Amino acid sequence: MRLIQFSALAAFMLSACMQPAPKSASAATPATPAPSTPSEVLAQTRASDWREPAPENLLVLELASGRVVMELAPTFAPHHADNIRALAHEHYYDGLAILRVQENYVVQWGDPDEKREIKNAQRTIPGEFFRSMSGLNFTPLPDGDVYAPEVGYSDGFAAARDPKSGQAWLAHCYGALGVGRGMGPDSGGGPELYVVIGHSPRHLDRNITVAGRVLQGMENLSVLPRGTGALGFYEKPEQYVTIRSLSVASDIPAAERPHLQVLRTDTASWNAYVDVRRNRRDPWFLDPTGHVELCNVGVPVRAIP
Amino acid sequence: MRLIQFSALAAFMLSACMQPAPKSASAATPATPAPSTPSEVLAQTRASDWREPAPENLLVLELASGRVVMELAPTFAPHHADNIRALAHEHYYDGLAILRVQENYVVQWGDPDEKREIKNAQRTIPGEFFRSMSGLNFTPLPDGDVYAPEVGYSDGFAAARDPKSGQAWLAHCYGALGVGRGMGPDSGGGPELYVVIGHSPRHLDRNITVAGRVLQGMENLSVLPRGTGALGFYEKPEQYVTIRSLSVASDIPAAERPHLQVLRTDTASWNAYVDVRRNRRDPWFLDPTGHVELCNVGVPVRAIP
Repeated sequence: MRLIQFSALAAFMLSACMQPAPKSASAATPATPAPSTPSEVLAQTRASDWREPAPENLLVLELASGRVVMELAPTFAPHHADNIRALAHEHYYDGLAILRVQENYVVQWGDPDEKREIKNAQRTIPGEFFRSMSGLNFTPLPDGDVYAPEVGYSDGFAAARDPKSGQAWLAHCYGALGVGRGMGPDSGGGPELYVVIGHSPRHLDRNITVAGRVLQGMENLSVLPRGTGALGFYEKPEQYVTIRSLSVASDIPAAERPHLQVLRTDTASWNAYVDVRRNRRDPWFLDPTGHVELCNVGVPVRAIP
Repeated sequence: MRLIQFSALAAFMLSACMQPAPKSASAATPATPAPSTPSEVLAQTRASDWREPAPENLLVLELASGRVVMELAPTFAPHHADNIRALAHEHYYDGLAILRVQENYVVQWGDPDEKREIKNAQRTIPGEFFRSMSGLNFTPLPDGDVYAPEVGYSDGFAAARDPKSGQAWLAHCYGALGVGRGMGPDSGGGPELYVVIGHSPRHLDRNITVAGRVLQGMENLSVLPRGTGALGFYEKPEQYVTIRSLSVASDIPAAERPHLQVLRTDTASWNAYVDVRRNRRDPWFLDPTGHVELCNVGVPVRAIP
């Protein structure tokens, strides 16, 4: 079979980001040339370029189609991280269902009957749509943005900020984990969550709480049958996709926890990674672009080597 | 069931674009207020605001999961439109297969064995990565863009242009139909085609021919199982998704053709539509954004009323 290809796969990458062609990586040789592809950059990273998310910040969603691992972003949504952890800890989500899969938009889950008791967690808490820029790690992406005055990455999350208002917020990139809400800004809290499965709906930024992002297993969400009701809701209960469990990794036996690392976004390796995403130098590309958009960089994830 | 919602559905819309909440549309009353939501704009359109794609520009892909309707863009890729039509006309694609489904990237189809004869069409033709700006309908989107000096819409297709070089090209938005190629710029031609199923990979712009876009049935592509091989290729022939047929609508009996209209992108209604996509005024939104990105507008498609 002739491979009509855009690029070749960086096989050790777990994330869904698109990888241009790896040449044969020649890291660790004395005269290492400057990396020209994402896979070459990654091959040249050191252990210190990667961080392992704390188990209390990892959510593990188990579906019939497989496991989805998400990382909470307590730096941006501390109260939601706490409340989602509390909901998971009391097994609130287990046995609930994915109720909505809207094409080119979101997968959303919750309680179809709205009858499940919440014991120790809260049903609603005030929205955390943005926070202060002050004290926030932020590696700017100088390529510009349509939606925000400044964009960049904060501890592995695509984010934006506005020096005028002094606010910062997480961006609705593909794979973002959001907190469903009703009409009021404080009407969400964690019982209903969604994940972006389409072209990044950045118009939702600052209108709803982003609580984290998917690190692994997006393909177990993105392939789900689209709902045929309004907004992509499933119309019949038999269409619901059961949530076998949604747990905090720290509540899972160590041997069954995900073992993932995320490329640090405050390192020279990160800057090199962004640069090869911006300037496509592998031979397939004829016009190397020279720009890269916030949600098109992708923050690499790998299994712990 | 409590609907935690971002917005409500414009039920008559066929396209996958995200629709903020329709209020009860009150078009055609004398004191019609300015529309504040996309569905209100669409409810106030006139017949002349819509165009019906010519049957010779519509491709109809039949899969077990359903029908996918695509519109060719001969204004940008005339030779590819001709060649794809020729391939379809000689039933080249019928019985071939979807060979690749890469998460957050593309669905791609072609001949797994590379043995199928091409009778009258061409296997490869020169790439049509861009064309002259001159003589092109182009409605600019003034919101800016990370990748191109100017972006906008041309006959219903998201496009970009560069006044310095005088070139214009189609953008790789969600749903774009592209022409797979190998390493050389002239190594594609139509036997392998792909559709974007993830966050718009705009870095492909100007590097490969975009020949059109999906108008209807994206959900029949986006739910396909992701391939587990390199680049999302299926690893076993039994995983291939059979193409029952891929036809030009003009070769299909009239009663079985798609009957779709696309909102014209050179009208006052279009400008009003973009404006309500830019400024989200329905009550759910707390921060109406004020900007909209090229691939996030979405060009509406509807059944012929």
